Amino acid sequence: MNDSYLKFVNSPFGARLARSLGLPKPEVLRRYRADRPEFDGLIAIGAGPAPRLFDALANLVASIGMTSVAHESAGLWVPLANRHGLMTGRFEPAEAGSAGKLAALLFDASGIEDSSQLEALHGFFHDTLRSLGKCGRIVVLGRPPEACATPRQWTAQRALEGLTRSLGKEARRGITANLVYVAEGAEHEVEATLRFFLSPRSAYVSGQVVRIAASATGMTGAVGKVGTAASASGASGTAGSHEAAAFDWRQPLAGRRALVTGAARGIGAAIADVLAAQGAHVIGLDIPSARDALDATIRQLHGTALAFDIAAPEAPAQLAAALDELGVDIVVHNAGITKDKTIAKMTGAAWQSVIDINLSAQERIDDALLAGGILRDGGRIVAVSSISGIAGNLGQTNYATSKAGVIGRVQSMAPQLRARGITINAVAPGFIETQMTAKIPLVIREAGRRMNSMSQGGQPVDVAQAIAWLAHPGSAGVTGQVVRVCGQSLIGA
Amino acid sequence: MNDSYLKFVNSPFGARLARSLGLPKPEVLRRYRADRPEFDGLIAIGAGPAPRLFDALANLVASIGMTSVAHESAGLWVPLANRHGLMTGRFEPAEAGSAGKLAALLFDASGIEDSSQLEALHGFFHDTLRSLGKCGRIVVLGRPPEACATPRQWTAQRALEGLTRSLGKEARRGITANLVYVAEGAEHEVEATLRFFLSPRSAYVSGQVVRIAASATGMTGAVGKVGTAASASGASGTAGSHEAAAFDWRQPLAGRRALVTGAARGIGAAIADVLAAQGAHVIGLDIPSARDALDATIRQLHGTALAFDIAAPEAPAQLAAALDELGVDIVVHNAGITKDKTIAKMTGAAWQSVIDINLSAQERIDDALLAGGILRDGGRIVAVSSISGIAGNLGQTNYATSKAGVIGRVQSMAPQLRARGITINAVAPGFIETQMTAKIPLVIREAGRRMNSMSQGGQPVDVAQAIAWLAHPGSAGVTGQVVRVCGQSLIGA
Repeated sequence: MNDSYLKFVNSPFGARLARSLGLPKPEVLRRYRADRPEFDGLIAIGAGPAPRLFDALANLVASIGMTSVAHESAGLWVPLANRHGLMTGRFEPAEAGSAGKLAALLFDASGIEDSSQLEALHGFFHDTLRSLGKCGRIVVLGRPPEACATPRQWTAQRALEGLTRSLGKEARRGITANLVYVAEGAEHEVEATLRFFLSPRSAYVSGQVVRIAASATGMTGAVGKVGTAASASGASGTAGSHEAAAFDWRQPLAGRRALVTGAARGIGAAIADVLAAQGAHVIGLDIPSARDALDATIRQLHGTALAFDIAAPEAPAQLAAALDELGVDIVVHNAGITKDKTIAKMTGAAWQSVIDINLSAQERIDDALLAGGILRDGGRIVAVSSISGIAGNLGQTNYATSKAGVIGRVQSMAPQLRARGITINAVAPGFIETQMTAKIPLVIREAGRRMNSMSQGGQPVDVAQAIAWLAHPGSAGVTGQVVRVCGQSLIGA
Repeated sequence: MNDSYLKFVNSPFGARLARSLGLPKPEVLRRYRADRPEFDGLIAIGAGPAPRLFDALANLVASIGMTSVAHESAGLWVPLANRHGLMTGRFEPAEAGSAGKLAALLFDASGIEDSSQLEALHGFFHDTLRSLGKCGRIVVLGRPPEACATPRQWTAQRALEGLTRSLGKEARRGITANLVYVAEGAEHEVEATLRFFLSPRSAYVSGQVVRIAASATGMTGAVGKVGTAASASGASGTAGSHEAAAFDWRQPLAGRRALVTGAARGIGAAIADVLAAQGAHVIGLDIPSARDALDATIRQLHGTALAFDIAAPEAPAQLAAALDELGVDIVVHNAGITKDKTIAKMTGAAWQSVIDINLSAQERIDDALLAGGILRDGGRIVAVSSISGIAGNLGQTNYATSKAGVIGRVQSMAPQLRARGITINAVAPGFIETQMTAKIPLVIREAGRRMNSMSQGGQPVDVAQAIAWLAHPGSAGVTGQVVRVCGQSLIGA
């Protein structure tokens, strides 16, 4: 729970000592706080030839109220920004004293059709990266490679991954770098995702690749039985385009009911907390033995507590019955256990209970909630996977198998749920500071903490914020995906 | 080039010292040698419910001449093996003194349709892993998740990845673990791939996932203009099934012409060497300044040397002209350069030359060879990517971008080339001991070497052997894929 090294090297004496010894100095990450502006400062805009997303980006910049500066690669930005009534200027490279002046770098690579055109990205990041401040944000935007018309275009768009992940590793200082592929027709569904990646809410999410498809339900995320139409209630003062839907960005989950499993403590409690802060009514579930902690967590949030064992055979029916009357809009499958042992020493019971609780129980519960229409159309499912499910891990054959299976669930169910406007995604936490990781032996814990671009572990709230983004009504175009919350951990597959 | 630690800890004194100090003791990997049997010893067979690949596996085991022992999970194996006339027995778990008795573990998970059935994998590996000897082989076989009929089946098949990667990290002792997804209808196209993963040729390939599709051209890999029909010339003594094609497994590339770029030294020279050893006529290409080294390499192989700069504008036409008369069957895009710098310090020229040589030149050359029909139908393209292209790397924005683009090339062109029976794949080397990596500072070099399941760097021949497998006429069902040759490096995305 407690990274004392991080605190020490950010004290005046510790910083001096670390510098003289050449020790890593992890940045104190800026996280979202309700009492501070979420978006602030200068955002530099760059582009390759024929950028297709400028309209959407102008709407976004207007909506979040940042001031833009156009790099020379983005000549079309200035007149467009003027038409949108944005505060804008030109980026002057290599000015003395420009270091740290920028809060974000946004590059529209959507028009790049050939590998030779990638040099526009070099020009932009070469000029701007040193001017990006601590905990700054880098977002590269492209087209989904697999939907490109020619192999040359697919190749060039796919190449953006190598660049973005390298930028994340180079930038350090709490800076994140992510790549967002926007499908044709989805240009006006980008705001919820770009807000997340530009916000302090994504403090520990870096090196990720996210696709936004044109959603079946368009921008509202509200179809079928969703009566509360939260998506129509917000006000978007400055956004110029009539295509972009308006959300209440402060309370996007108002009127939504969210089930969170494993909600008593740790990451689950943080998820409940963040969803409630965004307006959701939280139904927290945990095992009967955690009832007191669950009640305490949920009482503060004015939610509903359910004490069930999700792995019990009767649990799906029991849960469906408990939720039937009011239904549910958001399901977060967070409950999970570990029973680590090398496979030669692992009992059949230890294997089976981990698979059952972490994976099979999710399958049974979703079947029950979907069959009964209890999870409403336009709903959101978010499952917690793990970096171990991606890369495998020593002593975790059962856990890694279950968490890889969660990825399969998300990939397999997304197309099936599309017609109902339901999205399903996974988050895969890396090293997160919890009671669980506090029990890891010191040397291994230190390695896990430092082997990422942030040189530190994440916080439960970081996982929770990523889940809230995926649960957002504006995330209708994001489905079937796995997003790591790992500070761009070195570890992967 | 020289891992002196590996040698030291495998000397009698070094081994004692390492043991007393608790230092890692990397295994001396068993690699392919023409003067030793490629396949030898006992292979244990396990299975989930309703294994679909047993026929193909029985053919394989007969063809490679190993003796099989059936785990209790594979009850159907014994009668089948008897029908195929195989030497077979039953695996007795936990026998005193059984440690190290097995050479390979093969599990057929193709019939698994639900996460609860994954327990069969626990049973098998729990019982057998300790009996697997040094440099043993683990292969798990399943169905491609994305082609599964139900989300439950997709989920369970996808879960196999988490298991296989965990087994690779647990097993150590030079053992590899890989997962092969076999599509319906491709059951009799598995032999070339399974031979590779069971052979010492795959010494440094672990934690990989490979898909075998039913190929457009079936098993022959010889269609259209390929006149030499190498695939019909081999003899398959013991393989029982009439569906399985026969290859000359010692000289599978006999009669084929293989272009290798960057062939003068290092990995390129090793590729030329291995392809020639498997019967190919090698056309080695390198820049004019490397002509002496190229000539020396190629002369030994009785090949053809071409001294060109692949990045020159006239190179594609020049190359097409040089190859036009006899054509080419295999193209290996190995030539590449690095010009490392952080992007803020990287010149435009350093960016552009790396992108151009590592990526754009490949595009131009393939266009020329494909347009003219110079790369014959049934051909093979293999491009060298890199772990940096997958994970990104500090100081390598240009290189990582180019190598991520190579992945895009492979993914985008595979469907287009399918009708002509041409496959295109990439290999992504991790830390390979070459003159290039010998220049890396010691501490970073040591980290790169040890941060993988083999606790050592790979050899150029390891990359070459993986390329030879992909170039094999029996690999017609393997296309659009990226295979890492990295000893299951921790580093990934």
